[in-house]
Amino acid sequence: MTDNTEHETACPVPSRLSRRNFLAGLSVSAAGAAGLAAAGTAHAANETSTTGAGSGKSEQVSETDKTIPFDGPHQAGIREPAQANGNVVGFTVRRGVSADDLRRLMVIWTEDARRITAGKHPLADLDEELAENPASLTITCGFGERFFDLIGKKQHKPDWLAPLPAFERDELSDEWGQTDLMLQLCCDDQLTLTHATRHMIRSGRAYVTPKWIQMGFLPRAGSRGGGAPRNLFGLKDGTVNPGSEREYNDIVWIDEGPEWARGGSCMIIRRIAFDIADWEKLDRASRENVFGRKLSSGAPLTGEYEHDDPDFNKLDQYGLPVIDPTSHMARATNPEDKPTQKLRRRAYSYDLNLNPAVDDDYNQGLMFICYQKNPLDQFVPIQQRLDKIDRLNQWVTHIGSAVFVCPPGTDPTGADGLDTYWGQSLFES
Amino acid sequence: MTDNTEHETACPVPSRLSRRNFLAGLSVSAAGAAGLAAAGTAHAANETSTTGAGSGKSEQVSETDKTIPFDGPHQAGIREPAQANGNVVGFTVRRGVSADDLRRLMVIWTEDARRITAGKHPLADLDEELAENPASLTITCGFGERFFDLIGKKQHKPDWLAPLPAFERDELSDEWGQTDLMLQLCCDDQLTLTHATRHMIRSGRAYVTPKWIQMGFLPRAGSRGGGAPRNLFGLKDGTVNPGSEREYNDIVWIDEGPEWARGGSCMIIRRIAFDIADWEKLDRASRENVFGRKLSSGAPLTGEYEHDDPDFNKLDQYGLPVIDPTSHMARATNPEDKPTQKLRRRAYSYDLNLNPAVDDDYNQGLMFICYQKNPLDQFVPIQQRLDKIDRLNQWVTHIGSAVFVCPPGTDPTGADGLDTYWGQSLFES
Ligand code: HEM
Ligand code: HEM
Repeated sequence: MTDNTEHETACPVPSRLSRRNFLAGLSVSAAGAAGLAAAGTAHAANETSTTGAGSGKSEQVSETDKTIPFDGPHQAGIREPAQANGNVVGFTVRRGVSADDLRRLMVIWTEDARRITAGKHPLADLDEELAENPASLTITCGFGERFFDLIGKKQHKPDWLAPLPAFERDELSDEWGQTDLMLQLCCDDQLTLTHATRHMIRSGRAYVTPKWIQMGFLPRAGSRGGGAPRNLFGLKDGTVNPGSEREYNDIVWIDEGPEWARGGSCMIIRRIAFDIADWEKLDRASRENVFGRKLSSGAPLTGEYEHDDPDFNKLDQYGLPVIDPTSHMARATNPEDKPTQKLRRRAYSYDLNLNPAVDDDYNQGLMFICYQKNPLDQFVPIQQRLDKIDRLNQWVTHIGSAVFVCPPGTDPTGADGLDTYWGQSLFES
Repeated sequence: MTDNTEHETACPVPSRLSRRNFLAGLSVSAAGAAGLAAAGTAHAANETSTTGAGSGKSEQVSETDKTIPFDGPHQAGIREPAQANGNVVGFTVRRGVSADDLRRLMVIWTEDARRITAGKHPLADLDEELAENPASLTITCGFGERFFDLIGKKQHKPDWLAPLPAFERDELSDEWGQTDLMLQLCCDDQLTLTHATRHMIRSGRAYVTPKWIQMGFLPRAGSRGGGAPRNLFGLKDGTVNPGSEREYNDIVWIDEGPEWARGGSCMIIRRIAFDIADWEKLDRASRENVFGRKLSSGAPLTGEYEHDDPDFNKLDQYGLPVIDPTSHMARATNPEDKPTQKLRRRAYSYDLNLNPAVDDDYNQGLMFICYQKNPLDQFVPIQQRLDKIDRLNQWVTHIGSAVFVCPPGTDPTGADGLDTYWGQSLFES
């Protein structure tokens, strides 16, 4: 990782920058261009190189050496199995920052993310050693509503990018609220993750300042046995999720609305506090009934294996449904007549320092993260249903909420008509 | 892990309890006794079964299945290579809690820790699944000075268990200060760790309440290449540490003072805040000079490999010492005439939510944890030296401090004259 020739490549950030200029800028250094080209070819391998993370199978590459290709038609960090640690940072644009500045930020951030996810330290960062274990690091960017005002591109904002409707049970705090920009960083090594997060904050410092950072974790991939990771209520969380290319096309990747966003996705992050102390008073059968799934295997109460289809019509010996219709699963399942009401869920548990002043105030919960084409057809109707009736509601409170549009993926050479940096075609449209 | 017969074994906690009664209590359940006997035999395997964690060698047992034996002549969590995540909890004894109550707490905690570190959920805990991946979990207990007053055993307190002398540069906050009791929990899986921490807090709830919890992490073992893990300044941290049985006997395990404590150790935890933003302004050569070691390999500036001995007499081309005598390493090294001034260091990095109100206030640093026989001969003189002169001081501030005596190890059957629960011979002396 100590390739000093790379230090000599100054970061090319012309003040006005066409796609062609940008590429020309990159080619000043053979070493830099070679590195980028290598990154570019990697995205073809995207699918095979990432399946290991969630499968629990033994790998040839060690977990700390593994890289997930940054470039490709879609941003990394959405489809790949969730890594063991995740930081999401919400940024506010500083006063006086221009549209051009924000384009410059995107150029810098894209280039930094491309390098650091490949296990190379970013230009202008001297902490080579803290970047040397990529450990499946991904960095994913999203734009909040105000970003479009700031860059003077209101007309290119997706219609749905607006505050979510209020839900009855919301107890949202601005502390975890909407921001102008978002970076999601996920990694199997917490030191690499901490350094990458710090680096991205620092490299954007002239333009944006962090409003919040949400830090989360999951059990190690090796413990998941090919299934979904458990959350702090002990349940497997993420079982029902899109898998195939086709399901991702149907549920996750934007294919309508403004041209520049096609191939991108809508990301929602809800911070959800758990009442763990009260939850612990329930016996195991009650916990299972709240979700409609078994604690041990994650199977529906009507099935045996995690991925068995639930049978909502099955009755027990007393003639009552085996899966309570008010259980979280029953309420969250997409109705047959609404085939689009599905999500790519990619949640992380959080555990802040407990509040010693209050007994049992563990300050633990879920960073619920989901991806979709259009929240008005997906997250919103599902959450409206849950908000109205969901047995789980007794133990959870939504305390934060934000919505972003994630631009599509990139390619350092612009191959396949891809953007070279995050949001390039938005800036140029 | 779903052995329901185990639920039927009530935790045996007679109000007055001799070692003999305690063993009789345990034998009421064949299942329970078998489990404990199995744990008992495990401690012989202690050394071989734990070396993997820091060695980076490929394992036969998966990292999530691996257990570190709880029982043995010394508590686990001291000598073993540091796991990827560590939580240290400081507890205050509640008002009105008697000496007998505290003995009961030790019986409960020992039994819970014994089970949960073996991958079994503790009795009275229904979260079987959250305990099923032990991932090298260790739980280590320590007693603060006031504990001895509370149990009426002042005369059995080690002399050195008293507030540390004040250091000039200290900026200590009571928020991270001395407590009556301490649990150190370390694990390679953060979900297991969070659950174990929560369980221990809950199971002690009637007697003690947490005053603080310090959460830390290290890079994954696989990335350490057999060497020490890196801290947030990018340096390998923990290179010079005892290794052999003999070094542990010389430096770490108590063999003087009150009889009951022999085989135990003194644990000090200092919370040290880093000025990361200022540190990042240094070039790489300056960073190396501050420590006296190379960033890349961790070798002394006079050597090539991490474990090479430093040569403090070596001069550069200008006749100046290659290793600055005011560097952290030079100041921390034990003087030749004071062979006991060494420590078992087992530090973790911390990363709290950054403070968005202040630019560059990352809220990151080090939970400096060290073990030793007697702090007055070891930590104190070293820290006095560092406090006076250490180039590192410019970027670090000590903000928390606490000292504990960790009782010796245990055996569920009392074999080899070991305590069956933490501090048994203190309570019985
Ligand atoms: C409040 C904290 C929440 C927890 C602890 C939680 C946990 C779970 C669990 C354990 C499952 C079953 C296994 C699985 O398929 O992953 C599940 C399913 C699901 N949840 Fe949640 N969830 C929470 C909030 C939400 C929210 C806010 C939404 C969206 C509005 C949501 C949408 C879904 C969906 C769509 C499913 C799949 C249902 C199916 O088709 O079977 N969940 N959740
Ligand atoms: C302030 C934050 C600190 C940092 C970032 C830090 C980091 C380091 C590093 C990187 C090394 C060299 C590699 C190694 O042997 O581990 C080292 C050595 C050492 N440090 Fe620290 N340290 C800190 C505080 C302390 C404190 C408070 C003490 C004890 C009072 C201490 C005692 C030692 C000792 C004994 C050595 C080994 C010296 C030798 O024999 O080479 N350190 N430390």
